Amino acid sequence: MADYPEPVRELTAALRRLPGIGPRSAERLALYLAQADPSFVSGLAGQLTRAREKIHACPVCGVLTDQDPCVICGDPRREAAMICVVERATDVFNIEKSAVYRGLYHVLGGKISPVNGIGPEDLQVNSLEERLRHKTVREVILALGSDVEGDATSHYLAKRLQSLGLRVSQIAQGLPVGSGLEFADELTLSRAIEGRRLIDQESL
Amino acid sequence: MADYPEPVRELTAALRRLPGIGPRSAERLALYLAQADPSFVSGLAGQLTRAREKIHACPVCGVLTDQDPCVICGDPRREAAMICVVERATDVFNIEKSAVYRGLYHVLGGKISPVNGIGPEDLQVNSLEERLRHKTVREVILALGSDVEGDATSHYLAKRLQSLGLRVSQIAQGLPVGSGLEFADELTLSRAIEGRRLIDQESL
Repeated sequence: MADYPEPVRELTAALRRLPGIGPRSAERLALYLAQADPSFVSGLAGQLTRAREKIHACPVCGVLTDQDPCVICGDPRREAAMICVVERATDVFNIEKSAVYRGLYHVLGGKISPVNGIGPEDLQVNSLEERLRHKTVREVILALGSDVEGDATSHYLAKRLQSLGLRVSQIAQGLPVGSGLEFADELTLSRAIEGRRLIDQESL
Repeated sequence: MADYPEPVRELTAALRRLPGIGPRSAERLALYLAQADPSFVSGLAGQLTRAREKIHACPVCGVLTDQDPCVICGDPRREAAMICVVERATDVFNIEKSAVYRGLYHVLGGKISPVNGIGPEDLQVNSLEERLRHKTVREVILALGSDVEGDATSHYLAKRLQSLGLRVSQIAQGLPVGSGLEFADELTLSRAIEGRRLIDQESL
């Protein structure tokens, strides 16, 4: 029984290590790439290498960037009075897509998780505090995940940062836009009710 | 609104051109790769390039290979009296996985499709005939798809090859193994009934 040629098998094995790529997808992709337009394949290989070489964490905020400081830290039109704290570097781009926030960011690099042995000293908390001491920041927005560890991290940061005399807020938890109550779990609904907002008579 | 750094955007665009990779998957993969272990990324880029450079069609049968002739054509233990005709180079490995066939192969490179302007002269039919004239082949097995174009191609080849005095067979069409009659369409069932086999009393 003949198997795929070795270069195809090796490529399949490497592709399987990518997130969301199962054994069948890896095989299909490897076969496609082994027969694809050579200039497309060499271009893809070059882009892979270039992306990995050029992309790094912004030394100020931790956002993924190919320049120092990143386009957000380096933009004088952004509101320097606000810092939004996120868990991962990629979270920043999701918030940017919503186009509602015009301040700066700070990437924590994880969340506090005693079970996994991750404490505040393993996260970018000291560098955040350092930024807050030197800059004219008035509000810190905590935009962490709404799971137990995210909530615990938000709670810890809120306590620690409030002692610096800062306004600390947390993004709202509630019903996702476009979803019905029948799809929401009790915890989400209880948060949505707790976080209810008065409807302004004049806006109706 | 800040977008991903340019190297990430370029990599995302290249990944979107791969089969089965949608916009969200491409973005997720590009972000993963931009932050992955540098040695893994450079290894993957190298494997991509190497696979594309080394893999080509076997000059004899058209199977994907990194050596000439391919491991199948070059294996003296394979039965040279049988040639199995398939549409794509990748079909060969699917048949090899079933481990039931020990003969040689011939890749057509497509199927006859008047609608798309593909005739026998666009496929590897002449090279197949050439092989049949010189080799001691006794049977040609047609293993094409069971759609209209596959059937038409099988019909055309059977007629043309039988005139060379060869035994020409076609792989069976019928119920997939593990499937029930309730999932089979009428055409599949009619083929399954036409292709029925007598049950050997002695094998019971």
